[in-house]
Amino acid sequence: MEYPELLTKRRSVRDYEDKEVPLDTVIQVINESCLAPSSSNGQPWRFVIVTDRAVIKRLSDESKRNLLREIERDTRSTSSRYEARLRDPDFNVYYNAPCLVFIAGPKDLRSIETDCALAAAYLMLSASDRGLATCWIGLGRFIEDEELRDLIGLSETDRIVAPVIIGYPKRIPAVPQRSGPEILKIVS
Amino acid sequence: MEYPELLTKRRSVRDYEDKEVPLDTVIQVINESCLAPSSSNGQPWRFVIVTDRAVIKRLSDESKRNLLREIERDTRSTSSRYEARLRDPDFNVYYNAPCLVFIAGPKDLRSIETDCALAAAYLMLSASDRGLATCWIGLGRFIEDEELRDLIGLSETDRIVAPVIIGYPKRIPAVPQRSGPEILKIVS
Repeated sequence: MEYPELLTKRRSVRDYEDKEVPLDTVIQVINESCLAPSSSNGQPWRFVIVTDRAVIKRLSDESKRNLLREIERDTRSTSSRYEARLRDPDFNVYYNAPCLVFIAGPKDLRSIETDCALAAAYLMLSASDRGLATCWIGLGRFIEDEELRDLIGLSETDRIVAPVIIGYPKRIPAVPQRSGPEILKIVS
Repeated sequence: MEYPELLTKRRSVRDYEDKEVPLDTVIQVINESCLAPSSSNGQPWRFVIVTDRAVIKRLSDESKRNLLREIERDTRSTSSRYEARLRDPDFNVYYNAPCLVFIAGPKDLRSIETDCALAAAYLMLSASDRGLATCWIGLGRFIEDEELRDLIGLSETDRIVAPVIIGYPKRIPAVPQRSGPEILKIVS
């Protein structure tokens, strides 16, 4: 797809066809995401692919549990706005998508958040270029349970930065109103 | 450009033609970067455009000064590997590019690093789609001097996440060897 068209087709989608994403396609998309730049070309990103729906459900429950704990500890937490949904046992933070990719890396690396976000941007664009859709699930990264972390191959030193769901979209929503860019200053 | 081609054309470039980038083009590129997704669609990114070369030089000197201070305080700082270059008065961290864009936002926002990195990924791809080249300058974000921050419109509560230089590349280097993606686990 031409890039300007791709820019409008890459939309955050939470409603997917009941259709598996071929593993080969997911791996191609991940390969392309590794063409993103990274701090000092460190390429510190690591990937986990989960397509087992029972495991995705367990990960959703675990992330919800930890978020609710955070809200209980600190009622001013920015996650509080999601409390009602997090308490709904039927709410799956990954929206029952057929595929979940975690982008993670060493938590003590200063650039890990930005490096993984760059890979995530590439991953989401590459998926859209193949007729897939994605959504970065900010509520889905709070996986602390050791057994679950073992199951998905995360070590103690890894931090999940970007949980991204992938699937075939039921429809691609139109680009909503965007604020114009806030340009603080032009020094020319 | 078709996206797969753009993926290989977007390369970090530090050597530019001595040719200004039209301000309109920079603003178009910034507009497109705002199509990136952001946490809860918060679009917290703010932009500063600097094309005044004397100001770019002052910003470079300021960032170098603060980095050297950090290295002196903590010799194990990851910035230490750049110490020799930082001590070279002729080294401009922004590589004498004709245009510098800062992507910044509220430092107390939990998602500010990832939100701005997503916008930066889009900005770098959009620039490449127009025959421009870019480089994210990690060493260029340490601007603390109040007078300089005022000059570029940054408030005390803003954090610079992504300094990105933009210009017309002398040449676009080939894609270097990339590590294959490290896939920690496939749970299917």
